[in-house]
Amino acid sequence: MTDLRFSRDDLAALARTMLTRAGLDRDMAEVVAEFLVRTDELGVTTHGVSMVPYYLPELASGRMTASGRHEVVRDNRVTMVWDGNYLPGHWLMSQALDICMDRAREFGMTALAIRRSHHIGCLSTLTRIAADQGFVCYIATSDPSGKWVAPYGGTEPVFTPNPWAVGYPADGHPVLIDTCSSITTVSKVREHIGNGTRFEHPWMLDAEGRPTNDPAVVNAEPKGSILPVGGMDHGHKGYSMGLMIEMLTQALAGHGRAEAPTRWGGNVFVQMIDPDAFGGFEPFLREVAALNEACRSSRPIPGRPPVRVPGDRAHETVTRSQSDGVSLPEEVWTRVAASAAELGVRLCTPIGR
Amino acid sequence: MTDLRFSRDDLAALARTMLTRAGLDRDMAEVVAEFLVRTDELGVTTHGVSMVPYYLPELASGRMTASGRHEVVRDNRVTMVWDGNYLPGHWLMSQALDICMDRAREFGMTALAIRRSHHIGCLSTLTRIAADQGFVCYIATSDPSGKWVAPYGGTEPVFTPNPWAVGYPADGHPVLIDTCSSITTVSKVREHIGNGTRFEHPWMLDAEGRPTNDPAVVNAEPKGSILPVGGMDHGHKGYSMGLMIEMLTQALAGHGRAEAPTRWGGNVFVQMIDPDAFGGFEPFLREVAALNEACRSSRPIPGRPPVRVPGDRAHETVTRSQSDGVSLPEEVWTRVAASAAELGVRLCTPIGR
Repeated sequence: MTDLRFSRDDLAALARTMLTRAGLDRDMAEVVAEFLVRTDELGVTTHGVSMVPYYLPELASGRMTASGRHEVVRDNRVTMVWDGNYLPGHWLMSQALDICMDRAREFGMTALAIRRSHHIGCLSTLTRIAADQGFVCYIATSDPSGKWVAPYGGTEPVFTPNPWAVGYPADGHPVLIDTCSSITTVSKVREHIGNGTRFEHPWMLDAEGRPTNDPAVVNAEPKGSILPVGGMDHGHKGYSMGLMIEMLTQALAGHGRAEAPTRWGGNVFVQMIDPDAFGGFEPFLREVAALNEACRSSRPIPGRPPVRVPGDRAHETVTRSQSDGVSLPEEVWTRVAASAAELGVRLCTPIGR
Repeated sequence: MTDLRFSRDDLAALARTMLTRAGLDRDMAEVVAEFLVRTDELGVTTHGVSMVPYYLPELASGRMTASGRHEVVRDNRVTMVWDGNYLPGHWLMSQALDICMDRAREFGMTALAIRRSHHIGCLSTLTRIAADQGFVCYIATSDPSGKWVAPYGGTEPVFTPNPWAVGYPADGHPVLIDTCSSITTVSKVREHIGNGTRFEHPWMLDAEGRPTNDPAVVNAEPKGSILPVGGMDHGHKGYSMGLMIEMLTQALAGHGRAEAPTRWGGNVFVQMIDPDAFGGFEPFLREVAALNEACRSSRPIPGRPPVRVPGDRAHETVTRSQSDGVSLPEEVWTRVAASAAELGVRLCTPIGR
């Protein structure tokens, strides 16, 4: 399948119109659409406008709240807790980033735990906003309604994949780390199930505790799971990371698996650091530059491309998106187009068609 | 080889006497000895009094500073930077924990980056002190003079294994996560080289980029490396973690690989969080309890023991140390005894001998 290219404004307008047509408040739809397009610009097309068809039924059923505000549960200046009331995650995160950057300017560091957000999308899209303004931004998220990853040594899933990301300034373009505590993600599992394909490696565990590359074990009864980072070999390391992220996002937010929510949602932990409140911005950049240079110049494994620093590929993709338009896989466009047709929203036209 | 058991007071007195005999300030030796014994009580005998024979030549040569104070490079209240002047890491960390707990009580959250500490030992020994007082304590450390782990896709080592730990309160005993961003550690590599044994799995990479279970590749020319968490399969995840830890410990401290230090040292990032400044201590405990219970009750892989939460084994070991004395492997005792003999320090006697 080939990719199609679009003007960013066309795509943003399309996403915005679809979301407002489904009932989302206009200001929120504006922010969500903008963040989704930024995600496609980064090349993370699994989490860009391709999410709109998943958000529409959430809006229709009221499981994604379409207007109103979050509740400030706690504001201790340096630390904060919000209840997101299942509002769109991008919209909540847009405000979270603004207040966290303000507080980090004032105190040097701040953190906010959010309970009951809806899906916050691609973490790099968010950390990049703060890194571009000179901050170190850490974001982790979990969904206390989801069970996909088993603790190391167990077979019954307990955790979500628990993504975490950190973005920070560097020479040229920011470093954008965006990963998770399981080997693979729920999106990838669904993609393989949809395509009828298997993983290249045994990244799943069936309910009998046997590693397998078959994604369909998650639909079996009893249910299989996704292996934590490190797999059968050293999965206690991914298990540790998963535990920490559930603690940061749920225990600090005071809401999580103890309440056994059943609604698609996201708990979030955002931490913002101003390097100027530590050893200084220039020394920070100097150390990051030395480290990045050492990584990029490490002799590659024979036959492999040069070593990259996380964020290098995103930078190339953003540059190309800006010059040539935003690229979407045909499969994504087909799904978005079908949703738009259902809503009676007029499609935009790919560039050069 | 069998283990020997000792009274904690005897072991602490022995370590203290050896360290002061080698020139370490008496107050510092007291703290270092106490922390080493606590580490043995936790069962981490690679990082307990077994470290004394490694510290002695550092003291003798002046590479571990034997008296004086650290320099406060920056105190922004919520954020701090210290220059540790290569003072004993345990002593620095003892003070770091005290000030960070005070600041976390005041502001809800605080962080301290330390440049040029000496070795800080077992991270769980440190996080446990804070967790026992109700805090979430995150500690990461790197040594900018060490190169053991290559970036994913590269063959030339750039990072240290970059341990990280987080301890936090829970029902009964604290959760103590203590892991690192590489599959195995420098201590384990040295242990295998010393014993002439190989790793059970291919956790090393030779200089030609081939995975191997031979620890001796780190002594080859050109030098091999330790694989990042995730290995050949998904090592970009461990690489990301390693990058983040070098950023936190070096870039925020304003000192690291850019200065190319050649002296054994440790850069440290400590973060302290008061759950009461987020969603509250009781809700925190409730969420942690629900999560721990879900993990412990996940049906084990057939033939494997029940799932543990990190900190469970440490708790059992501490309890046994308190009733039966502190256990040391005979190999450790032989090395410590040899060092004591060189210094003319009288040995203590194992319990029941």
